Amino acid sequence: MQTSFITGVAGFIGSSMADRLLREGKRVVGWDNFSTGQERFLAEALKNPNFKLVRGDNLDLPALTQAMAGCDFVFHFAANADVRFGLEHPGKDLQQNTIATFNVLEAMRANGIKGIAFSSTGSVYGEAELIPTPENCPFPIQTSLYGTSKAAGEGMIASYCEGYQFEGYIFRFVSILGERYTHGHVFDFYKQLVDHPEYLKVLGDGTQRKSYLYVGDCLDAVLHVIRRGEARTARHGVAIFNLGTDEYVQVNDSIRYICRELKLTPRLEYSGGNRGWVGDNPFIFLDTQKVRATGWKPALTIEQGIVSTLQWLRQNTWVYEQRH
Amino acid sequence: MQTSFITGVAGFIGSSMADRLLREGKRVVGWDNFSTGQERFLAEALKNPNFKLVRGDNLDLPALTQAMAGCDFVFHFAANADVRFGLEHPGKDLQQNTIATFNVLEAMRANGIKGIAFSSTGSVYGEAELIPTPENCPFPIQTSLYGTSKAAGEGMIASYCEGYQFEGYIFRFVSILGERYTHGHVFDFYKQLVDHPEYLKVLGDGTQRKSYLYVGDCLDAVLHVIRRGEARTARHGVAIFNLGTDEYVQVNDSIRYICRELKLTPRLEYSGGNRGWVGDNPFIFLDTQKVRATGWKPALTIEQGIVSTLQWLRQNTWVYEQRH
Repeated sequence: MQTSFITGVAGFIGSSMADRLLREGKRVVGWDNFSTGQERFLAEALKNPNFKLVRGDNLDLPALTQAMAGCDFVFHFAANADVRFGLEHPGKDLQQNTIATFNVLEAMRANGIKGIAFSSTGSVYGEAELIPTPENCPFPIQTSLYGTSKAAGEGMIASYCEGYQFEGYIFRFVSILGERYTHGHVFDFYKQLVDHPEYLKVLGDGTQRKSYLYVGDCLDAVLHVIRRGEARTARHGVAIFNLGTDEYVQVNDSIRYICRELKLTPRLEYSGGNRGWVGDNPFIFLDTQKVRATGWKPALTIEQGIVSTLQWLRQNTWVYEQRH
Repeated sequence: MQTSFITGVAGFIGSSMADRLLREGKRVVGWDNFSTGQERFLAEALKNPNFKLVRGDNLDLPALTQAMAGCDFVFHFAANADVRFGLEHPGKDLQQNTIATFNVLEAMRANGIKGIAFSSTGSVYGEAELIPTPENCPFPIQTSLYGTSKAAGEGMIASYCEGYQFEGYIFRFVSILGERYTHGHVFDFYKQLVDHPEYLKVLGDGTQRKSYLYVGDCLDAVLHVIRRGEARTARHGVAIFNLGTDEYVQVNDSIRYICRELKLTPRLEYSGGNRGWVGDNPFIFLDTQKVRATGWKPALTIEQGIVSTLQWLRQNTWVYEQRH
């Protein structure tokens, strides 16, 4: 039976993937430094005898190598996902994304593990010239240290596929939401409205167009693509797929969905401008024809994803209470 | 008067740039760890009162920051340029190219320096789908750790341009040759023919198509583009230019030029296959229309560049003798 190693297993997507694999009867070794991971996300997994949790940091290569022993496939989801504050601590993305990914690859090489799935991001496209943005769009100019660090992770994985015959699966996600979602737009807006239902502060002018994908659909897509063995027939042994829905919403749309669901009519206070922050991309919309051609399609619309996220947040007040 | 800081100042391109700027009456602070740099390349510079040499390593950020104080512009040429052996020490490109470039940017930020020129490479295109390859070709899949590490350097520079209003000049070089050329094809072939004029070992089948640019033309192009202030009008404040000639040669062509110049007729021993090594790109040819549109063009053909390289190597036997 295959044993999967999941970095960032206590995170939003990592813990969801662990639960999914364990429910399928698979074995999982989970790895997390709990810098942002949540113990509570592993409550179900920790009851399962097929799950083993190892605490450790991706920057500790010897420990990572040891933890990975005996595994067959790696889901590398651990990352600094704090996209917005890259300029306040410019070394963080380099450390936690680029160098961390190098260590994951080296630990795999030491253990003879060849298969890796990587959570990349639509941010690797910078401010794309082509929208919706396909995987082979014009060579982008990076506009964020986050996007740069993820693109570097992609490049190292692809180089290991070329040089050491790894099988790489690179997924460029739009923003993911759903159960266990703990940062980003919808989270911030919801938290604000719990604190002060009468008004909502909005970065930018609300016209920024964003794309979201429901976490359940994201996991489906990742496993679907891997189980088809897409990397084996891909150029240089690396399969690269955008993941998203074929729609986008304005920030103002998501505010509307949230307010309707919460039955609130807050005063909207816009900070102005068409960007939420320096490096914010005012329009992210990925072309997902490539993954759709494999037979996958998302079950939930963006609106349904936002609603399911809110329902989960309302049932899990601890998530935002501890962050006050 | 402007003071330029040059990393890798004892290297092939760094020392040539130092001499060029000093001859123009400019001030130069040179920085090198002498891991591959050559003292002798600085013989002329060290006689010039406008030149200051600081020994240090890019991985030592405090020393780098201190050395850069008072400078106005940075030429970041220091790199692991040992493209071929990336798979033997996979961490080297990450350390010496990616992390080193981050440190250069952080040292600049600490000193309030905004302008940087970066020696990137045509290797960032991996095995390009489009040849000749323009700067905005389809998003490439990386095939080497070297290319990956340089692309990461580019991305960090572009992100600093976006986030901290740096002015970035990124030059994607083909292979550079000429005076002070100390590694690569022509060097290896020449060294072999000095050792054993009767035969020449050739990696691959000799049909690999490569591009070269003469170092003097390379320096002209770099200074021309910077002095036109191309970054100021470029998207996101970062000017990206391919540098090369509008021709390429087969490895067999360069063997012919070398043998003719040396008046030798060695037996050719091919290792076979259309690649010299794993990750070798069998066809590199960059589209240089963008830099040509600025008014620059190379003075020397590839053949002339190879001949001038050989003439220099014959007059500087110490370069290959010490490497025996």
